[in-house]
This record gives sequence, C-alpha cells and structure tokens, in this order.
Amino acid sequence: MPKNRVEAFSDGIFAFAATLLILNFAVSGHPLGQQLVGIWPSYVAYAVSFITIGIIWTNHHTVMHQLAHVDRFFLMVNVLFLMLIAFIPFPTRLLALNLQSEGAEAAALAYGVTLTSTAILFNVLWRYSASGRRLLRHDADQEVVDGITRSYIIGPIVYFAATLIALVSPIVSAGLYAAIAVFYVLESSIFGRRS
Amino acid sequence: MPKNRVEAFSDGIFAFAATLLILNFAVSGHPLGQQLVGIWPSYVAYAVSFITIGIIWTNHHTVMHQLAHVDRFFLMVNVLFLMLIAFIPFPTRLLALNLQSEGAEAAALAYGVTLTSTAILFNVLWRYSASGRRLLRHDADQEVVDGITRSYIIGPIVYFAATLIALVSPIVSAGLYAAIAVFYVLESSIFGRRS
Amino acid sequence: MPKNRVEAFSDGIFAFAATLLILNFAVSGHPLGQQLVGIWPSYVAYAVSFITIGIIWTNHHTVMHQLAHVDRFFLMVNVLFLMLIAFIPFPTRLLALNLQSEGAEAAALAYGVTLTSTAILFNVLWRYSASGRRLLRHDADQEVVDGITRSYIIGPIVYFAATLIALVSPIVSAGLYAAIAVFYVLESSIFGRRS
Amino acid sequence: MPKNRVEAFSDGIFAFAATLLILNFAVSGHPLGQQLVGIWPSYVAYAVSFITIGIIWTNHHTVMHQLAHVDRFFLMVNVLFLMLIAFIPFPTRLLALNLQSEGAEAAALAYGVTLTSTAILFNVLWRYSASGRRLLRHDADQEVVDGITRSYIIGPIVYFAATLIALVSPIVSAGLYAAIAVFYVLESSIFGRRS
Repeated sequence: MPKNRVEAFSDGIFAFAATLLILNFAVSGHPLGQQLVGIWPSYVAYAVSFITIGIIWTNHHTVMHQLAHVDRFFLMVNVLFLMLIAFIPFPTRLLALNLQSEGAEAAALAYGVTLTSTAILFNVLWRYSASGRRLLRHDADQEVVDGITRSYIIGPIVYFAATLIALVSPIVSAGLYAAIAVFYVLESSIFGRRS
Repeated sequence: MPKNRVEAFSDGIFAFAATLLILNFAVSGHPLGQQLVGIWPSYVAYAVSFITIGIIWTNHHTVMHQLAHVDRFFLMVNVLFLMLIAFIPFPTRLLALNLQSEGAEAAALAYGVTLTSTAILFNVLWRYSASGRRLLRHDADQEVVDGITRSYIIGPIVYFAATLIALVSPIVSAGLYAAIAVFYVLESSIFGRRS
Repeated sequence: MPKNRVEAFSDGIFAFAATLLILNFAVSGHPLGQQLVGIWPSYVAYAVSFITIGIIWTNHHTVMHQLAHVDRFFLMVNVLFLMLIAFIPFPTRLLALNLQSEGAEAAALAYGVTLTSTAILFNVLWRYSASGRRLLRHDADQEVVDGITRSYIIGPIVYFAATLIALVSPIVSAGLYAAIAVFYVLESSIFGRRS
Repeated sequence: MPKNRVEAFSDGIFAFAATLLILNFAVSGHPLGQQLVGIWPSYVAYAVSFITIGIIWTNHHTVMHQLAHVDRFFLMVNVLFLMLIAFIPFPTRLLALNLQSEGAEAAALAYGVTLTSTAILFNVLWRYSASGRRLLRHDADQEVVDGITRSYIIGPIVYFAATLIALVSPIVSAGLYAAIAVFYVLESSIFGRRS
C-alpha cells in the first residue's frame, strides 16, 4: 500500500477525533452565564486534548516523512495506535466532568492510561520502522533517525509518571497533562520559528 | 512538513466542524409541524455558522496558497486556530436555544468571543507567515500580500464590535453575526463571478 | 483556488453527512429483538438517505470533472449546497421516527423541501459553471455538457412533486423518495456496467 | 471518475465510522472507577469493531490497487458497501450494552448480519471488478488476482457461521467476532513483517 493512503486515513481519524471533542460540552439549568463559567474544566480539557492530538499528529507526520514504504505489520500497529487516538474524547469527558468530584482519581487514571498507551504504541510504530532501517527512505539521515528515537522515548515516561501521580492527587495529575501540552506549545513558539 | 498535509488536516476539521452543526437540531413534543416552525432560530444559527465556517475555510486557503512552506510555530498556531473552528458548534447551539430566553446575552457573548478569537488567531497566522516574507512563495506578489493583510484586519474588529453589542442587545448582536455572513455571500455573488 | 481542494472539502462533507446518519438509530425498552424489528423505518430511511447522498456525490464529481477552475461565486454556491447536504440527517431522522405517527406529513415535507432545495442549488451550481462555458475545461464536449444540463433538470421536478404529494399522503411521498434512490441503483446496475 | 476520488470518499467513511465508535461509551452512577470497570464489554466491542474496520479498509485498498478504473456499477456497489461500514457502530453498541442481558442473542445476530452482509458485498465488489479482468490494471498479475478471489471468499463463510452460532450461544458468537479480529492482528504480526 502506498504510504500516502495511510496518511489520508490517519489524518482523517486525527482530525475527526479532535473535532468530536466538542460533543463533550453540555449545559443545563440556569442562569446560562453562570453555567458557562462553571464548566471551566471542560474548556481546559478540550484545549489540552485538542492540542495533544495536534502534537501527536505532527509527530506522526515526522515518522511518515522518514519512511519509504509500509508493510502489513506497520499497518496493524498503526490501526491499534489510531484506535487509541480515537478513544481520547472519552477520558477527556470523564476528566472534564469529574475533576471536582469523587471520580477525579478514576478519570485522571483513565486519561493517563490512554495517553501512556498511545505513547508506547507510537514508540513501537517508530522503532519497528527504524530498527535496521527496515522501512526508512534510503536518504533518511541516521543522525536524525537516532534523534527521533531518543526524543520519542520521553513521551511514555512522562505520561506514565503523571498517571501514577493520579493515585496521590488527581488534580496534580491533570495539571501535568495540561503542562505537557503547554510545554510543547511554548517550545514550538520559541524554537519552532523559521529565522 | 509539506504544506499539503496541513491543508488536508485543516480541511478535515473545517468539514467536520461544519457537518457537526447538524447535531444541534432536536425536536420533542407535538405537533411536529409546529415544533419544526418553532425552532427557526436553529435554522438561522445553522446557516450562519455553516456559511461562516465556509468563508473562513476559503480565507484559510488564500493564506495557504501564498505559502512556500510551514514551520513548527505556524503548525502550532494553526492547531490553536483549528481548535477554535471545531469549537464553533457549541456557541452556535447556545445561541439557537437561548435566543429568546434569559440566556441570550451569555450565548451571544460566547458566540462573539469564539468568532473574535478565531479572527485574531487567523491574523496571527497570516502576519507571522507574511512578516518579512517569512513563509511566502518566492513568486508571491507583495501587493497581493499587503492587500490580504489589510482585508483580514477587519474581521477581529467587526466581530469584537458585535460581541460588545451583545451586552446591550443580544438580538442585535446575533443579527450582526448573521449580517456579516450574508454580506460575504452577497459580495461574492456580485464581485466573485468570472467575467 | 485549485479545484482539487474544493473536491477534498466537499468529499469530506459528503462522507461525514452520510456517516452521521448512523446517529439516528436508537432503541430502548424490551425485548431487544422486537425493538430492532420495530424500528424498520429507521433502516429504510438510513438506506435511502445514504444512497441519495452517494448519488449526489457521484453527480457532484461529474460536475467537477467538467470544470477547469472555480471562482468565488461558485465557491459560495457550493458552500450553500453542502450546507443542505449536511442537513439531510435531520429530516431523515424526522421521517424515520414519525412515519407512522401524526408527524408524518411534517416530516415528509421537511425531507422533500431539503431534497428539492438541494437539487435546485445543484442545478444553479452546474448552470452557472456551464453557461457560456464559463468555468468549463477547454476540452469539455458541448454535447456532454448539454446532456448533463438536460438530465439534472429532472431532479428538482421529481423531488418537488414528491414533496407536494406529502400534503395528500406522507407515506406515498416517503415511498417516492425511496423509489428515486432505488431507480438510480437499478439504472446503474443495468446501464452502468463496463462491457 | 478517477479512482483516487473513490478512495478519498471511501477512506473518509472508513475513518469516520471507526471514530464514531467512541460515541458508544457512556457512564452514569457512582463510583466512577467501578463504572469504568463494569463497562468492559464496551472496550472489547470498541476494539473489535475498530480493528475489523481497519482490516476491511486494508482489504479495500488491496482491491483498489488492482483496478485501472471504475464504472457506475462499481460506484453503486461501493456506496452500498460503505453504507454497511457506516452502520457498524450501531450493532457494536447493541452488543456492548446487551452482552450480559436478554438482548444478547438479538445483538449478536444484528452484529453478525451486518458483518456477513459487508463481507458478501465486498466479494461482489471484487468479483465484478476481476471477472473477465473487467476493471483490472493491465499489469495486474492473474495469480495475485486469483489469490485475492480465493482469500476473500472466507470472510462471508466465517461471519455467517458466527452469526448462526448466536442462535445457540450469543457469547460464543461474540467471542468468534473478536477471535476473527485477533487472528488477523496476529497473522499480520507474524507474516506481515518486511524481512
């Protein structure tokens, strides 16, 4: 299968999963203005998940850009990876609705387990492709490849740590999920400009 | 990242956000015919938001057409911009359901803040790309570029004004959001024809 | 704007509107088997609307295939046309849920008005493009162009007739919407094969 | 119609249908942690349907890759086929919610009938294209073509068998649907690697 069809299918799921986050918003009761202020965790959760999906989408393209072709094993891991991307709206809603209730711990755990699994599968996808230069383009620079390998290993570790923290303090855990997204935005703002 | 992948991802979110507007429709109670007439604000809100998203999509392509490439800062601002596009269905529903109730002011404010923020981020996206011709194509005409810069500055001003008016009269504010969309449709009908 | 971006955006809305039809399904109560049989109008409505959207999508590509380029007027009519395509899931649900109740007439009217308006806008889109060969490719065969013009005029007439019949008998009207879809499927099955 | 537009439309529906599966998740009541464990059939159903759609998507591309062009009959069968793909989220939800209740048999039957019909239509799509090499590329290897024909015949048989088993034991039937998906994942893991 040509890799551009894998990109089209993946892009569709990334874009759709991000857009479906909007369905997590609901208000009921009066007055409306007060309701709209009261659901602030929903806005934060929406922004964090949308940006996180945007970052993963960017990284997914970095991977695809290094590949010459894909095989059936890659396709299957990619489907499992996309299955987790499409799952993100559910723990996002859980976190938004339960951040200030007894369900905060379970919600923060669900969110963290989802993101940690996504990060692990993403590493599997990349390492399978890069190991022995299995699926790489002939002109892929080995230094760039090794740099990608090193930088992607951080994701699962950071998300797993934030997940464990949910057992102690769900609110700190949720704050860390947000901080990871903010870090990437700031880092791109500072280092991602074309001079 | 090649810019065509940014276009594909962005087009996906534009298309999904516009199509998701349909989920704002709901009827309950009897008789059905009367219900369908009674939800007229939903039809207006649907049309205004769909056309507005369509207009922003057209403008987004005008921007992309002038670019030679994108960098990580552009990508990040684009994700934040798309996050607001995907958010539009929520204030649209608020406005449709509350136009004739006590929640009209809050709903009109929410709609206006969303559209004003979208217009501001769109200007950031363009000005970052055009400033010092940072991301522009070599053959991009500087006069066209300056014309785009001038025309896009109007968006945030008009939407901010309509938002402020919501504090005085939500219905006038909502009428202005509609008028902006109608203006663009008429303007395209008159000046957008190929001779 | 290159016409392939218009196709991508339009394809997204066609595909998404068709897929959203699935959200019209709901069962409640017991036993499940009986419920699943009882919602047969939902299956029929789903199939008719999905096939209808598929047929319109095919016709939309026939139009795009004849064009060399698009202008802003075309883009705006296309957005209005897509706005109606994305609206189809709502009257589909109305018809599915009210086919056997007092709301049948209103539902059949809503469905018919939507499809008639879609067919009219589609004719506007085509006639604007073809009139004086305004947007056509240089190699577009005038006989083919005239044939398309003739065949598309039938759509609004047939749908308008079926809509009027809803005032007398909603069930006959709904049957006609289904018959139009079935007709196209059969016609393609018989005449659409490559010899 | 060029076949790449058929691919884009089909990819869109595959991606949306898979992503819409997330809307099947819902929790209510307390405590949240217990609820999240209690809905385990929803996770399994989500994974099985997502992977199944991913596998069918892969196979659909295998078909498209062998074709030189498409005709209107192919387009129409493809629309009917996509109609079934987009339908999958509904029986998935039925199975997830009723696996442990009286509705298990009806849900397992609905799931099986959907997947069996999908597999049959997929065979019609392929056999129509390959019969007499009607739509095939000139360079399509006849041995590969015959191999595809042989391998695709298994789908309807296996799904039909699993559907019949639902009449005796819905849980065994559901287990078989899962086993088919797991089999493909394992088979790809073992035989789908580039050496």
